[in-house]
Amino acid sequence: MINKVNREIPQEIEGLEKLLPFRGFKGQIKDIQRLKERQVSENRKKFLPSIEKAILETGLKDGMTISFHHHFRNGDYIINMVMEVIAKLGIKDIVLASSSLTKIHSSLIEHIKNGVIRRIETSGLRGELAVAISEGLMDIPVCLRSHGGRARAISTDELHIDVAFLGVPSCDAYGNANGYSRENSAASACGSLGYAKIDAQYADQVVLITDNIVGYPNVPFAIPQSQVNYIIKVDSIGDPKGIMSGATRFTKNPKDLLIAKHAADVIEASGYFEEGFSLQTGSGGASLATTRFLKEKMIKKGIKASFALGGITGQIVNLHEEGLIKKLLDVQSFDLKAVESLKNNRFHYQIDASYYANPDKEGSAVNQLDIVVLSALEIDKDFNVNVMTGSDGVLRGAIGGHCDTAAGASVAIVVAPLMRGRMPTILDRVNTIVTPGNTVDILVTDQGIAVNPLRKDLLANLSSAKIPIYSIEELQEKAERLVGKPEPIRVKDKIVGVVTYRDGSVIDVVRQIDRERQF
Amino acid sequence: MINKVNREIPQEIEGLEKLLPFRGFKGQIKDIQRLKERQVSENRKKFLPSIEKAILETGLKDGMTISFHHHFRNGDYIINMVMEVIAKLGIKDIVLASSSLTKIHSSLIEHIKNGVIRRIETSGLRGELAVAISEGLMDIPVCLRSHGGRARAISTDELHIDVAFLGVPSCDAYGNANGYSRENSAASACGSLGYAKIDAQYADQVVLITDNIVGYPNVPFAIPQSQVNYIIKVDSIGDPKGIMSGATRFTKNPKDLLIAKHAADVIEASGYFEEGFSLQTGSGGASLATTRFLKEKMIKKGIKASFALGGITGQIVNLHEEGLIKKLLDVQSFDLKAVESLKNNRFHYQIDASYYANPDKEGSAVNQLDIVVLSALEIDKDFNVNVMTGSDGVLRGAIGGHCDTAAGASVAIVVAPLMRGRMPTILDRVNTIVTPGNTVDILVTDQGIAVNPLRKDLLANLSSAKIPIYSIEELQEKAERLVGKPEPIRVKDKIVGVVTYRDGSVIDVVRQIDRERQF
Repeated sequence: MINKVNREIPQEIEGLEKLLPFRGFKGQIKDIQRLKERQVSENRKKFLPSIEKAILETGLKDGMTISFHHHFRNGDYIINMVMEVIAKLGIKDIVLASSSLTKIHSSLIEHIKNGVIRRIETSGLRGELAVAISEGLMDIPVCLRSHGGRARAISTDELHIDVAFLGVPSCDAYGNANGYSRENSAASACGSLGYAKIDAQYADQVVLITDNIVGYPNVPFAIPQSQVNYIIKVDSIGDPKGIMSGATRFTKNPKDLLIAKHAADVIEASGYFEEGFSLQTGSGGASLATTRFLKEKMIKKGIKASFALGGITGQIVNLHEEGLIKKLLDVQSFDLKAVESLKNNRFHYQIDASYYANPDKEGSAVNQLDIVVLSALEIDKDFNVNVMTGSDGVLRGAIGGHCDTAAGASVAIVVAPLMRGRMPTILDRVNTIVTPGNTVDILVTDQGIAVNPLRKDLLANLSSAKIPIYSIEELQEKAERLVGKPEPIRVKDKIVGVVTYRDGSVIDVVRQIDRERQF
Repeated sequence: MINKVNREIPQEIEGLEKLLPFRGFKGQIKDIQRLKERQVSENRKKFLPSIEKAILETGLKDGMTISFHHHFRNGDYIINMVMEVIAKLGIKDIVLASSSLTKIHSSLIEHIKNGVIRRIETSGLRGELAVAISEGLMDIPVCLRSHGGRARAISTDELHIDVAFLGVPSCDAYGNANGYSRENSAASACGSLGYAKIDAQYADQVVLITDNIVGYPNVPFAIPQSQVNYIIKVDSIGDPKGIMSGATRFTKNPKDLLIAKHAADVIEASGYFEEGFSLQTGSGGASLATTRFLKEKMIKKGIKASFALGGITGQIVNLHEEGLIKKLLDVQSFDLKAVESLKNNRFHYQIDASYYANPDKEGSAVNQLDIVVLSALEIDKDFNVNVMTGSDGVLRGAIGGHCDTAAGASVAIVVAPLMRGRMPTILDRVNTIVTPGNTVDILVTDQGIAVNPLRKDLLANLSSAKIPIYSIEELQEKAERLVGKPEPIRVKDKIVGVVTYRDGSVIDVVRQIDRERQF
């Protein structure tokens, strides 16, 4: 057999697969245009003029699964923008799988009513959409997943994404994208694209939507060119005010400060507060304040942390820049200070949701955590935690990395006020279990600390540091003496949400609220 | 159905997959040991005491495919070390797929003779092993692939890797590895692990071999923890003298300097020497010198390059640090200067072989190249290039990224002396076609320049810049007048090597040399 360059090639060689003869150079005809034009035109197909055109090119059909990320938080324009076009095109029965949903997504209610959206997967639900779903809007319950659980589901194809629509704050003509390198301004920078990275890696097709095309190569990238099929430029991808969570503000709430002080004392006495310890703290008031108190203790003891994990705030960045935390593993940047640091600090490193918390892979970073400080809407006597439904039973939270970090960390500390208004935080049974109690180690409230009896080691360490310990029942009684025992929430039979644990199993369900029978 | 946390969970919900009830926290029993021990013990199974133990744990069997990388170049200890253990264990018929092989790997000859190695895939072959294979050592021909072709073959599962054995200059207890972040010394730093990244991503099992365990988390990482199954610590993974190619040295060879000067003139006149142009130059003497001449022209014209691609040398780093090249995309670091830069310079970015040159993905970086300067052992009148076999027909080179970059770049310039000793470089037909002539644009020799007639645009640009152009036949005649026409190489029928093009098709074969019939 003679190939295209006139070489005699045998059709078969024993021990090798069948040989395919060279048929000539299959690339583009060499483009003799100048650089900038060529950078666009060599893969001109990646640039499409509109979201509509991209949806048509991907061949999106009824019943398919599309995905989004929530790095733009309450400033996100992408989901509403894309869903409007999908609705206009008459596509129905879409499974919408976002890494989370927030208040800004209330327009989805109409798309659910009109049959455009059949099913939703998300980590969180808030605002009007959450209320409507709690009231029975959807025929099929929402599937709620943790960040690690979502990464697992996507990487195992349990959650197969047909098309990912990913908003990116910067992107070159080939699709190298990241959350910060804007040449013009920092208008819609979001920092880490940790959740989106998973979608880009596993989705059949990836459409990037940006308002900021930059020169090639846009490195460092969060999403590489090789994972990107189409690129759309729009006027604006998000509202900077909504994208930034404002998490850097220090709380002045005396209850939060008290909780934070207790939490820092607990960490100090836990036995894990040693040179090279690691931590994850969230963006809530008490959590942020804990970091501040911890900083003082670190300086006093002369120790440094090896890394901080998860959603990164400006406050954690300060500790990094002061040399108190060696490395930051950033799956989500909460404020502009964190965005700037991710851009400029070599050891502030962007990680994806799988690296962060996937329970299936050969180890994710949560398993290396010493201490995590987590919030709770409710906690029960078995230390089960609810971060998903409010005291009225309505969906209003997000699983996030709650159960992932609780399972991975050596010490999972839940911080919460003993009461919120007239509602006690400790219940006999939480209304919705998100995180199983045997992964929760310590409850810190403004009025006392309880240690999970499973953790005799922590109990001993805290006791020998003379930290007053209550049983969780004692704390519960303390609250109930003041505000009484809450009435159970009345719900209907209909299931509106399925709460999955990080391994995909169902840990709880959320039922439709019964407005008429509430007290 | 009641789940492990006592919740009533329906077995099925219409519209959802079958529900799996939560069966309890499946993680490790929480480890109450202190940090450093826990970091090891949480995934203790990753650490194994010896290569032998790792081979047994992976279940490596007769006939399986194992892979290696060539970032340690001629200082590599890994391949010989692993193959010795495999031989000792009595495992046979292994397919050895390395990103390349060099002189240091001559001990493989014994393993081939003994039936331990049945088949080899590599980009290059040198030294005694190459000679022995040219002389007919193996029953099955070696499969030769370009770097982009290998990435394509691995990512499409055409080349399925059962176990990858990857030497890494630093690694934490969880498997985050890179080529530079040594806490102790830079003994065996190799910089980019661009070729190894592909193996880590796609191999069924990944064994890291290191001489340098560092603290968690070893970020930035080249290989993430999630891709790593086992980690072995050995005394030494390589010889620093062999790892560094010494590519930073400037040539003083007057022929090389002349070629380099011509090449820089050609680039300047090509029409692509504009603000934001991009380039790839190799580590050969003429190639390096070209960069030096080009630098002067860039300063004179007041332009900067957008990026340099491929194997990165200290000289390219100098241009980057002087602000003349904005970004470096590094698949392989040729010297310590490049290693240091990869570690410290934010826009010196590590890329994998797929990002670099995979022809299948949604665009690789070679397609964005304006100019590549490539070497050649032989070139023929159709501009086909041989970088694989010497003038005696013996295997002695490597495909590398030759055909990948030639296909992708707007201007592919081949630099070579018109003669090497008494052997002309231009032949009627090269002995082994690696890169097809229609992807090669310009030949620059010490005694004249030829332009591929397919590139009328380049011919026009060079002519209008008054650069003297010859036809390739004229250059060939020039050489032949001095040294005569070389006798054809005598070969036997047996095929010892199959040269694949980047798309996997066979562009040429290499036949056993006939020692008796050489002239």
